[in-house]
Amino acid sequence: MKVGFVGLGLMGEPMARRLLSAGHEVRVTSRRRDSAAALEAGGAEWAATPRDCAVGRDLVMVMLPDVATVELAVLGPEGVLAGGPAIVADMSTTAPELSERIAARAAAAGLSALDAPVSGGPAGAEGGTLSIMVGGDPGTFAASVPVLRVLGTPRLLGPAGSGQRTKLVNQLLVAATVSGVAEAWSLATSLGLDLAAVHDVISGGIAGGPLLDFMWPRLMRGDVAPGFKIDQMIKDLRLALTEAEEGGLDLATARGAHQRFQDLSTTGHGELGTQAIVRHGSLHPNTSDRSARQ
Amino acid sequence: MKVGFVGLGLMGEPMARRLLSAGHEVRVTSRRRDSAAALEAGGAEWAATPRDCAVGRDLVMVMLPDVATVELAVLGPEGVLAGGPAIVADMSTTAPELSERIAARAAAAGLSALDAPVSGGPAGAEGGTLSIMVGGDPGTFAASVPVLRVLGTPRLLGPAGSGQRTKLVNQLLVAATVSGVAEAWSLATSLGLDLAAVHDVISGGIAGGPLLDFMWPRLMRGDVAPGFKIDQMIKDLRLALTEAEEGGLDLATARGAHQRFQDLSTTGHGELGTQAIVRHGSLHPNTSDRSARQ
Repeated sequence: MKVGFVGLGLMGEPMARRLLSAGHEVRVTSRRRDSAAALEAGGAEWAATPRDCAVGRDLVMVMLPDVATVELAVLGPEGVLAGGPAIVADMSTTAPELSERIAARAAAAGLSALDAPVSGGPAGAEGGTLSIMVGGDPGTFAASVPVLRVLGTPRLLGPAGSGQRTKLVNQLLVAATVSGVAEAWSLATSLGLDLAAVHDVISGGIAGGPLLDFMWPRLMRGDVAPGFKIDQMIKDLRLALTEAEEGGLDLATARGAHQRFQDLSTTGHGELGTQAIVRHGSLHPNTSDRSARQ
Repeated sequence: MKVGFVGLGLMGEPMARRLLSAGHEVRVTSRRRDSAAALEAGGAEWAATPRDCAVGRDLVMVMLPDVATVELAVLGPEGVLAGGPAIVADMSTTAPELSERIAARAAAAGLSALDAPVSGGPAGAEGGTLSIMVGGDPGTFAASVPVLRVLGTPRLLGPAGSGQRTKLVNQLLVAATVSGVAEAWSLATSLGLDLAAVHDVISGGIAGGPLLDFMWPRLMRGDVAPGFKIDQMIKDLRLALTEAEEGGLDLATARGAHQRFQDLSTTGHGELGTQAIVRHGSLHPNTSDRSARQ
C-alpha cells in the first residue's frame, strides 16, 4: 500500500521502519530531516511537509507529541488533509475532541479518518506488538487493518474519538497504579523490610501485575531511566482529567498522581521515567524520625 | 502435630478444616460454639477459652478480626500464652507493634511466637493456597512450616512484626489499585465507552493484573458481594497509614482510598466488597451534565 508517515520520533521512526520492511511504499516527513536518514537509505521517500507526504497516499499515519502539533500537522494549510489521502490515522495520544474534528473535516472533504493511539512503547513499536486503540467507522478500520497489523494488534472501539478515550482510560489507570506502587515501595522502605522478599510476596498477590514488576526492580537499583517519561504522563493525564471533569467526576487518585508528576517536572525531573515518582517529597521516608523511634 | 485454632470465621473455619483433613490433632475455640459444629463432627476437640485451646499444644494458630480481639485472645488472662503452647502463630492482620509484644511476652515465658498474616481470602483458605507472610526467628519458622504448608506458601520475611509489615504494604497496594481501577471504570463509563472492549484492551496493557480482572467484570454486572469487605479494608488501611505516618510519609493515594471507604462505611456500605468503591459520590458520572454537552 502507499503509506505516508508524519513524525519520526522515538515511536514513529521504528513504526515507519516496520512498514518499509513489510513491503509498503513509504513516504515520510518529520521536523528534522536527519531523523529520516536511515529510512531514506532503506528506500523511503522524503516529503517536505505533511501535505506533500499525503498526496496520492492510501493511508497516512501521524505520530506526534502533543495536541497542538497534531492539529497543525493534520488540519493546517500544509497539513495532511490538504494533501487528500484516502485515510488519515492519527496514532498520537491527543484530545478525543480533536479526533472528532479531524473525522468531521475529513468526511467533509470526502476522505476518511481514524484515531488510533497505541500502547506498548518503543519496544512495542520495534517489535510490532503495539496495542492499537481505534476509533472510526468499520469500513475505514477494515481498509486500514492490513497496515495496522504490521505494527501490532488493532481493535475498533467505536466511532471517532473512541480510540483516544480508551487510551486516556488506560493512561489514567497506569498513572494511578504507578502512584500506588510508589506508595507501597515507600512504605516498605520506611519499614526497613527486605525489598526483594516483599516484591516476591506482593507480585504473586491480587495487586500484582506487569507495572509492579517493571517498577520494583528498577526502584531497587535506583534506575529512573524512562520507559515512559514523566512529562509525557503529565500531558496524557491532563487530557484524561479534562474528560473526567467534564463528566462531573472527582478522580482524586489520578489528580494526586498528576500533582506529584507536576511537582517533579517543575523541579527539573520531567525527562525521567514515571517510576521516579518515588523521589517526590511526600514519598521520602523521614529516616531520622524512624531511627529515633527505634 | 497437636494444633490449636482460635477463631473460626470466614477464614479460620476452612483453615482449621484443612488441618484436620491433613491428619493433625486439632483443638478449636471460637466466640460461638456453633461455628465449630462441623469441625467437631469431623473429630476436632472443643475448648472453652483460648487458654484451654493452647494447653499442651505444639502450635496454636490465631485468626481473629482486629487488634483488640487478638490482644485479648493471646495476651489476656484466658489467652493463648497463659495455656503455654510451644508456638503461637497469629495469622490475623494486626499491628506490627502487637506482634512484637506477643513475641517478647512469649520469649519471657519460654515460648515462641510468629506473626503470620495471610492473603488469598476464603478461596485460598479452602484450597490451601494462601500466601503466608511470616515474621519471627528461623528456628520457630522451620518448626511451623509442616503445618503452615497445609494452608499455603509460608515465607519468612524477617524478625517479629515483619510478616505484619509486609501484609500492610500489600494491603496498601491493594487499596490504591482498587481506587485506580475504580477511577478508570468511572471515566470509561462517563465517556460512554464499550466497557467489555475497554477491559480487553487495558487488561493486556502494563497496568493490567488480577485485581483489574476481578473488579471489572463484577462492576459490569453490578456485583458488589464481598471478596474482601470495605470495613476490613478500612481496618487494614488504618494500620498501614499509621505506620506510614510514623515514617514521615504522606501517602495521598492510600489516604484518598481510605477516605472513600470510610465515607461508604459511614453511609452503611461497609459490608460490601471493596469494588463497591465505585458507588462513592466522587466516582459517579454526572450524566445529566455530560448529556447536556452532547
